[in-house]
Amino acid sequence: MRVLILGGDGYLGWPTAMSFAANGHDVFAVDNYLRRNLARETCSEPLFDTPNLPKRTEIFRAVSGKGIDSAIGDCSDHEFLSRIVRDFSPEAVVHYAEQPSAPYSMRGHREARLTLENNVLATFNLIHVVLEHSPECHIIKLGTMGEYGTPNIDIEEGWLEVTHKGRKQKFLYPRQAGSLYHTTKILDTDLLWFYVRTFGLRVTDLMQGPVYGISTPECDCDEKLLPNFHYDDIFGTVLNRFVTQAVAGVPLTMYGKGGQTRGYLNLKDTLQCVELAAGNPPARGELRILNQFTEQFSVSQLAQQVTRVGASLGYEVQLQSIANPRKEAEDHYYNAQHSELLKLGLRPHLLTDEVLADMITKVGRYSAKIDKSIIMPRVRWS
Amino acid sequence: MRVLILGGDGYLGWPTAMSFAANGHDVFAVDNYLRRNLARETCSEPLFDTPNLPKRTEIFRAVSGKGIDSAIGDCSDHEFLSRIVRDFSPEAVVHYAEQPSAPYSMRGHREARLTLENNVLATFNLIHVVLEHSPECHIIKLGTMGEYGTPNIDIEEGWLEVTHKGRKQKFLYPRQAGSLYHTTKILDTDLLWFYVRTFGLRVTDLMQGPVYGISTPECDCDEKLLPNFHYDDIFGTVLNRFVTQAVAGVPLTMYGKGGQTRGYLNLKDTLQCVELAAGNPPARGELRILNQFTEQFSVSQLAQQVTRVGASLGYEVQLQSIANPRKEAEDHYYNAQHSELLKLGLRPHLLTDEVLADMITKVGRYSAKIDKSIIMPRVRWS
Repeated sequence: MRVLILGGDGYLGWPTAMSFAANGHDVFAVDNYLRRNLARETCSEPLFDTPNLPKRTEIFRAVSGKGIDSAIGDCSDHEFLSRIVRDFSPEAVVHYAEQPSAPYSMRGHREARLTLENNVLATFNLIHVVLEHSPECHIIKLGTMGEYGTPNIDIEEGWLEVTHKGRKQKFLYPRQAGSLYHTTKILDTDLLWFYVRTFGLRVTDLMQGPVYGISTPECDCDEKLLPNFHYDDIFGTVLNRFVTQAVAGVPLTMYGKGGQTRGYLNLKDTLQCVELAAGNPPARGELRILNQFTEQFSVSQLAQQVTRVGASLGYEVQLQSIANPRKEAEDHYYNAQHSELLKLGLRPHLLTDEVLADMITKVGRYSAKIDKSIIMPRVRWS
Repeated sequence: MRVLILGGDGYLGWPTAMSFAANGHDVFAVDNYLRRNLARETCSEPLFDTPNLPKRTEIFRAVSGKGIDSAIGDCSDHEFLSRIVRDFSPEAVVHYAEQPSAPYSMRGHREARLTLENNVLATFNLIHVVLEHSPECHIIKLGTMGEYGTPNIDIEEGWLEVTHKGRKQKFLYPRQAGSLYHTTKILDTDLLWFYVRTFGLRVTDLMQGPVYGISTPECDCDEKLLPNFHYDDIFGTVLNRFVTQAVAGVPLTMYGKGGQTRGYLNLKDTLQCVELAAGNPPARGELRILNQFTEQFSVSQLAQQVTRVGASLGYEVQLQSIANPRKEAEDHYYNAQHSELLKLGLRPHLLTDEVLADMITKVGRYSAKIDKSIIMPRVRWS
């Protein structure tokens, strides 16, 4: 299959590109280094340097014998993306090309506008380019479980059947998110749903939970093939940050009560889910929505597990509740369905103590590189 | 009250500006002539020329003794809008500053992108500028009933209480619209709702139906104060177009079966509704949503009434069903609530035969100016 990966230099994009290539697909990866640039701008450098995208593909070719084509450019640039889609003629496009940080999107007017313009215009542009050049192509869009927020009813997989005054209607599940970043993903979904039902696009929207991990079969082949690993307050996801704090001897910073519950998944399972989606495309005119996570945890549960497993490895891990910099419920109902990817064949890598110990050990190798000054919250919207 | 009107040169914006000024408010009108420029670009000139915005304010001052300040600029330009909000310090902002045509938004990639960028960024910019300079200010946003689409259940006023598996949650009423233009208004609502609940904005979102009419107390004072009146397929709303077709002897072009049902209102009632909203602001942190229309009609009902009233005035009006250029249901359930504006004091001007006869007579004065070539659909997305 010809697979185009937008945002192919990212934490998820690069491992995804390697995984598709390793499995025999023709892969083309596109990125404009936005996340690298924003991380530098905000002093949120990753735990270790990663080679640039063309260099990574050279190293991967040397290790695996598999090629990955790449181009550097902006997916919200119509001419740039048109040329790539026209020439490569993808059967699937995996769309990760978005500013991915909630705190960054809440930092100020400039950052909010950049997030809104980048994310919505990249999605809009992709829709139009696919309609123009490759209307059969399957768009696999990375959404977020954060679109749903924390409603007081069960979170279904994308859709909600409503009975009201004796009549029935199936709606897109109502969404209300906790940051502008998450809200841009709602706007993306609204746009995709409009163009799917109007022009018969073929779309899978993956509502993904927070991802953790540093290991995939391809990343593990060479240190230079590792994903970019952020542990700071702006680009780091919570479990990656806690693991790094455990290694660095920085008390785990639990925001508020720590009752915030979400669905999490291992980086390896992101790759599985995206490849399962690609291998099982929906019909034209279908917006298929899959909730992409494997286990629900509260933040305090994660903190306790890191504390326990860290201790077993000889780290003295402490826990510190700090004022929540975010506006979010710290104690809420949360029950999200996630059966559709299992039906497609997902075999979850759960967060066992062994998995967590392996993560802590791997991150421990870079302990000298940890910058403790970029862990405490620098952006507040509480 | 200091009232800032964005899109103050438009079909609704200019009559609104005059009405607030006539009622003793301090009015500042802003426009970038986008609609004028797009109408020229698409050969969709209005029925008669209207003076530019500063000229209109001069004529209005001469007629009424009331002043209206104005500025020409783009509401998605942060520096421009910041300066105006900072200096004028409005108590209410009426936000009409959007590309208002569904067919224009569906014409091609360039037009779609312009609509998306203009509408969403103007709303985003207004939100940020109000938060920065005037956080108490009441934002009165013109949404559209079209955001709701045509669901198989009753359309409530903005919100829907859902019972699901024995639990309850109140959601923003789920929205799914029939054009990109209408979809941009959904994105606006999503953005407003996020910023209202996160930062305590004070917002009224008016879900307005199609507006008809040419007469308001101020517009009637001088021909040069008339609103810009479009009757073409791109910028003309259906009843204004039918009235013009009746006068010109062009068969009324009913799209498909004509069963498309919507809530309509008289231009005079738009002004009433906006002023009622301004006079009764919601609390900070409240997104108040009001369904703004007075009567439901199907397109074929409107066509029949225009035929009957036209005949009584000596016009021979014919009806022609043409292939629907839009992707929309032509036969559907439709029952939309609209009680909140009545509770605030709205006294509707209903579409009586006398009101319609007056419209036909007024439009009849310009019959020589009608360009019959811009009535049939020029944009299709069926």
